[in-house]
Amino acid sequence: MTSTQLLYAQEGSPEVRTIVSASKKYSQEMTGIAGKPAVKKAFQTLIDLQPETLKDHILLTEIPAPPYKEMVRAKKYAEMLQAAGADSVWIDNAGNVIALRKGKGGKKTVVLEAHMDTVFPEGTDVKVKFKGDTLFAPGIADDTRSLAVVLSVLKTVEKTGIETDANVLFIGTTGEEGQGDLRGVKNLFSDKGPGKIDSYIAVDGTDITRIVTRCLGSHRYRITFKGPGGHSSGSFGLVNPHNALARAIHYWVLDADKFSREDGVRVTYNVGVIGGGTSVNSIPFESWMDVDMRSESNERLFAIDKLLQAAIQKGLAEENQMKRSGPDLKVEVKLVGDRPSGTGDPNSAFVQRAIASTTALKAEPSLEVSSTNSNIPIAKGVPAATIGSGGKAGGAHSLGEWWLDDKGYEGAQRILLLLLAEAGIAK
Amino acid sequence: MTSTQLLYAQEGSPEVRTIVSASKKYSQEMTGIAGKPAVKKAFQTLIDLQPETLKDHILLTEIPAPPYKEMVRAKKYAEMLQAAGADSVWIDNAGNVIALRKGKGGKKTVVLEAHMDTVFPEGTDVKVKFKGDTLFAPGIADDTRSLAVVLSVLKTVEKTGIETDANVLFIGTTGEEGQGDLRGVKNLFSDKGPGKIDSYIAVDGTDITRIVTRCLGSHRYRITFKGPGGHSSGSFGLVNPHNALARAIHYWVLDADKFSREDGVRVTYNVGVIGGGTSVNSIPFESWMDVDMRSESNERLFAIDKLLQAAIQKGLAEENQMKRSGPDLKVEVKLVGDRPSGTGDPNSAFVQRAIASTTALKAEPSLEVSSTNSNIPIAKGVPAATIGSGGKAGGAHSLGEWWLDDKGYEGAQRILLLLLAEAGIAK
Repeated sequence: MTSTQLLYAQEGSPEVRTIVSASKKYSQEMTGIAGKPAVKKAFQTLIDLQPETLKDHILLTEIPAPPYKEMVRAKKYAEMLQAAGADSVWIDNAGNVIALRKGKGGKKTVVLEAHMDTVFPEGTDVKVKFKGDTLFAPGIADDTRSLAVVLSVLKTVEKTGIETDANVLFIGTTGEEGQGDLRGVKNLFSDKGPGKIDSYIAVDGTDITRIVTRCLGSHRYRITFKGPGGHSSGSFGLVNPHNALARAIHYWVLDADKFSREDGVRVTYNVGVIGGGTSVNSIPFESWMDVDMRSESNERLFAIDKLLQAAIQKGLAEENQMKRSGPDLKVEVKLVGDRPSGTGDPNSAFVQRAIASTTALKAEPSLEVSSTNSNIPIAKGVPAATIGSGGKAGGAHSLGEWWLDDKGYEGAQRILLLLLAEAGIAK
Repeated sequence: MTSTQLLYAQEGSPEVRTIVSASKKYSQEMTGIAGKPAVKKAFQTLIDLQPETLKDHILLTEIPAPPYKEMVRAKKYAEMLQAAGADSVWIDNAGNVIALRKGKGGKKTVVLEAHMDTVFPEGTDVKVKFKGDTLFAPGIADDTRSLAVVLSVLKTVEKTGIETDANVLFIGTTGEEGQGDLRGVKNLFSDKGPGKIDSYIAVDGTDITRIVTRCLGSHRYRITFKGPGGHSSGSFGLVNPHNALARAIHYWVLDADKFSREDGVRVTYNVGVIGGGTSVNSIPFESWMDVDMRSESNERLFAIDKLLQAAIQKGLAEENQMKRSGPDLKVEVKLVGDRPSGTGDPNSAFVQRAIASTTALKAEPSLEVSSTNSNIPIAKGVPAATIGSGGKAGGAHSLGEWWLDDKGYEGAQRILLLLLAEAGIAK
């Protein structure tokens, strides 16, 4: 999951956790699946595989995968998926590792994925260290544990001979974190993707009670005002990009504050980073800011974005109008993050199955809000959710990130149940 | 001279060069001084000393003197002044090297100084390189040439036995450039200085026509808004320091623009550098800007500064009023540059003598505006000017700085004339 959302959770999100339950229909369906001898056997296989899954987990964690540099890990993960028995494995143009396990019917396609990228830059020490039973390493929980679990699910269906009706794509995705801007999952749903996807299970984080079906969308921009620059006294009267930036912030904040207090879905806005200028006695040649806005409602997201665009133009026009000499100021507005909003229908088969699979593991399901790979399918109306891979974890996005195998197999079992419910058991 | 002013000149200052001339009284006085046999002999001594002055010049240039790190050069300069025959030499608490040559009357004190500091950081290659007759090295013209000339004037009065009526302080000053904020000269006029100073000749730059008597004052601030910081979505509603900064800029620019268009002495303002923030999705814990304002009129300077202070408080109050949770924003306003404005009276004895000494060398005197060590005495009503040390120069404040000995002795001769006119010849 993104840094954003981990922090969001840590920093006291206003969201309240509400335990949900599945309808009788889906509870019964799930009880049926979990009761099948093949599935019982598969549950035991997931437990038996634990030492091997841990080995895979450590091996993958120790291959650095900084933003935009997932390729080494991707190649290894492709080998591992191939060795686990996938029918075919390839790496797509966005760097996603895709392993196809054909279904008996083959009319539907279900994705089960975890993301390969971490937030950590090149050169970060990713060696796994043990303190008692706890494993410490950057990226160990977010999201390398999930990669190992996705692999273990493939191994399990292979070993137990479970055949699904739908094709299943086991995927390691790229670019989930921050600046990656969901580029892996976006590619899967583009015309360069593997074809029609009918349902999408993203495994991210470890908590086995959370079901992320509400997608916090966001727009992020780098806005840069550019002028000729010059000496503060000798060239006085030239446009000053900082003045235009300040005015843009001022007008946006005025409008956005009002808008965000109006009735409606929660919307937030932020000027995060500003910069520009060379010295106190130089008129800067550029002034820039990084801004972020979010909402679960696409409509509200686009509305607050529109206020920003108007404020930028107003700031630009006013500074140009004020200048005494020289060329006009220009502005460059670059969209650097675009995550759509959306909410999965709680009564849909997919969400009901996600709830029922959680209850089947005696965990208390809760539908939650976050910004994850599921944003893309949900925004496109494809059934999807993001769920955890099991065990306990903390310190995500910090050098002190850790993971502990506290009944971690339950995460794997829940994932298997949801996958089988969605893909259908052919035999 | 400061970077500021060199750029100012380069970038098309609106100031127009006007040739001035001295009144008959001071022209005659100067003709009298220049005609004395001792002074004629001294003029020849300055020419004869040229090879030695060049050697001193190179030696001093090759001792690095970055801002706040003038001490090595200062110790050497103190030795050289002592060896040249000063009655006593000491280094004051601001690092200025002060060499006293007692006068016969000793009731007045005249300062002749150049600044020791350069703009170049530690590690800059200051080895002097020759291309034909031209000397290249960072700091060679600004202001090391002047240090060598001030020393040569002391040597000359010693060698020729000229005694002055007034005490003369030959000084190497510290902190003239940018961030030094004139700390050397400020100390000379403080209660930690060498006592009452009656007139002040600053040697800076090389041009022998310029007489800087109009002082461009400036106020510079680092303004920092500080809040708790937090996650852009999870902590939404906390104060955002960028918002307050933007509002402060917006309000200041509105008021300052209006004020600077009103009739009166020219006044300029600038937001030069801005910064703060850690990531696009974090509410920053701080937001800062470096601002600069200038005028030859102290009154106008203080007025535009007052507008800034009001805008800062307005920005602060508005953002605090808008917050939904958490502590108030705070602001830190730090004065980082304070150079007073002022203008030397063109009809005063000092300025008339500066004009007459220039004319005596057949150069065309012009009263100019700049920001130099003379700002301090002039603001305090002490007769002062900044004049050049002779020769041709360019590329000041760049690694390609150069100096060429094109009748450089004329600069030294002009300085000697002004010094003798001010200090009085005792025999």
